[in-house]
Amino acid sequence: MLKFDVLRTDGHARRGRLTLNHGVVETPVFMPVGTYGTVKGVTPASLETMGAQIILGNTFHLWLRPGLDVLRQFGGLHRFEAWQRPILTDSGGFQVWSLGEMRKISEEGVKFASPVNGDKLFLTPETSMQIQHVLNSDIVMQFDECTPYETKGHITTEKEARVSMELSLRWARRCLDEFGRLENPNALFGIVQGGMFENLREESLASLVELDLPGYAIGGVSVGEPKEAMQRIVAHTPHRLPDAKPRYLMGVGTPEDLVEGVAAGVDMFDCVMPTRNARNGHLFTRFGDLKIRNAKHKTDERPLDPTCGCPTCAQFSRAYLHHLDRCNEMLGPMLASVHNLHYYVNLMREIRAALDDGTFTAYARQFASDRARGID
Amino acid sequence: MLKFDVLRTDGHARRGRLTLNHGVVETPVFMPVGTYGTVKGVTPASLETMGAQIILGNTFHLWLRPGLDVLRQFGGLHRFEAWQRPILTDSGGFQVWSLGEMRKISEEGVKFASPVNGDKLFLTPETSMQIQHVLNSDIVMQFDECTPYETKGHITTEKEARVSMELSLRWARRCLDEFGRLENPNALFGIVQGGMFENLREESLASLVELDLPGYAIGGVSVGEPKEAMQRIVAHTPHRLPDAKPRYLMGVGTPEDLVEGVAAGVDMFDCVMPTRNARNGHLFTRFGDLKIRNAKHKTDERPLDPTCGCPTCAQFSRAYLHHLDRCNEMLGPMLASVHNLHYYVNLMREIRAALDDGTFTAYARQFASDRARGID
Repeated sequence: MLKFDVLRTDGHARRGRLTLNHGVVETPVFMPVGTYGTVKGVTPASLETMGAQIILGNTFHLWLRPGLDVLRQFGGLHRFEAWQRPILTDSGGFQVWSLGEMRKISEEGVKFASPVNGDKLFLTPETSMQIQHVLNSDIVMQFDECTPYETKGHITTEKEARVSMELSLRWARRCLDEFGRLENPNALFGIVQGGMFENLREESLASLVELDLPGYAIGGVSVGEPKEAMQRIVAHTPHRLPDAKPRYLMGVGTPEDLVEGVAAGVDMFDCVMPTRNARNGHLFTRFGDLKIRNAKHKTDERPLDPTCGCPTCAQFSRAYLHHLDRCNEMLGPMLASVHNLHYYVNLMREIRAALDDGTFTAYARQFASDRARGID
Repeated sequence: MLKFDVLRTDGHARRGRLTLNHGVVETPVFMPVGTYGTVKGVTPASLETMGAQIILGNTFHLWLRPGLDVLRQFGGLHRFEAWQRPILTDSGGFQVWSLGEMRKISEEGVKFASPVNGDKLFLTPETSMQIQHVLNSDIVMQFDECTPYETKGHITTEKEARVSMELSLRWARRCLDEFGRLENPNALFGIVQGGMFENLREESLASLVELDLPGYAIGGVSVGEPKEAMQRIVAHTPHRLPDAKPRYLMGVGTPEDLVEGVAAGVDMFDCVMPTRNARNGHLFTRFGDLKIRNAKHKTDERPLDPTCGCPTCAQFSRAYLHHLDRCNEMLGPMLASVHNLHYYVNLMREIRAALDDGTFTAYARQFASDRARGID
């Protein structure tokens, strides 16, 4: 099931509430990424404490490991990974695309060699739906072909993007059929493709809307394109999607991207950036980003961000985090991941509060100026 | 300051209470190892929750990184690593010994090249005391020479062990002088050496007791000797130490070693085993040890140990921990470290309860039989 209520709007921006089989999600929302059934370096308890409402899992990765037998035995991903709140699973389309030369795409689906053990595998819209049915994720993504920004060394042409987009549309219909056949009680989202071409995005969107899916995503961004191209598509597509349905911008992005996405009408975001950057010592704060490896932090007794309410900032100094990083101590990425995810989750909480109060424009302005100030 | 009360005895075993500048420690106690100012992969909050009462830090490592300037600025190790309860710091003797050919020992101290940046360094009894004074650890260990089990390819002879033990004694006196000169408000422990020779152990012990130190350790075990040799020394030395003072067996050991150590009169233990083994997928349980990498755990829905009260066993299955291990996910060693440390801390809690109740012998018998049963 999926129920979506738009509680308030401000321009294209929306404050909403999404009700799913495993709970309620206040939107706009950031969804931490838990590819292999774990948000890297963070416990479920810690995610709950910081206020994460819904996390991601990945069809492709979980199919390979632990495999469907184990996940079926556990009745899905929730019990396996000890996460009681909603889960969204990506379909595997993006990961298969990431395999590059290791995969072969046909009308039927995608053939590839398992990166784990070399086994020959075949992922189709139907198998993706079957896997996600076993995962019992609250939101199931359609299997799509993620149109790359570059194809065979050149920028993807409109013709190439159209071929890819139309394949994803045919796959969307097959996904919907299989999802229905399986009597999956959760919600299937379609994915708008069309590369960097507004006309293709509109065609994709129109055809997906005809399928009357419970939610829609914008895919094929954050795939190597220049920032301006991404911003152009993010400004173009979200508000053209049906008002009454949730809109999910896949794989985006920086804190600035999230605020822009909300202004453009996006309700849901996911990105590996907070956890991946944390493991590289790149930390987000209200006043700009900070590289903890930098020698200037060696003696700094201050927390990463004095305005932050996360457990890392409550207890530890920059000097200590710098020390952990220098010594390659595991606690370093652990504390950094909690901080960065808390930053993203809290940013969305602040955005929701601003939308509730009708002060989103002022909030976005203050956000941009705070972030641009740079952290001292 | 240090105050030690023996509350109850059972044969050589003692139930005690150690009062230090940063708090009270109920003994017998296991002390998690936090070499570089962090117990690997575990937050201070998690250590507090599991009931860890005192943790270790290492003089040698912390001297190199973050260095004394940073630690002095923070007023010591407690605030730097956000741990409010007592800390014991090892003197650096064992670590300098571990450097092998990279170090040169003289009467004055040990010259070596920094394993971090190659800098030429000189560690003496006096510098070790000065560093530990900056660290402000509740228990300061004397700088000693750890007598190896093997010397230059042969088993260390009694003559070699005597030379080494006598050097450690002279260093103990220099440590005590420097500790006094610095007016360190904490407590200095002497370390009994003497290799695998009971007569040397007794000489070392007698000379250290003359110094009237507030506590004594047994060093130079767990240095490559056969298990029987270690057990022989552990059975020999502890109860010969002054009854009124705490006794610390350094770097030991398995759960079985701890129970034997308590029976032999030891009050304090430390070992890297719970955290190091956790990172290698070796897990301790009441009913024997378990290798989580083993394929038989792939579909096992049970917790590691159904009798364990740790957060890992409360939430996660063996199948999930097996999956995390197979995928090299950071959450794997995190959850395993919490479990193993909880196992050690809880083992000591159970031992203390048995001593309180006068049932230690029965407890030790049940422990041995449970552990020998093997986990299914």
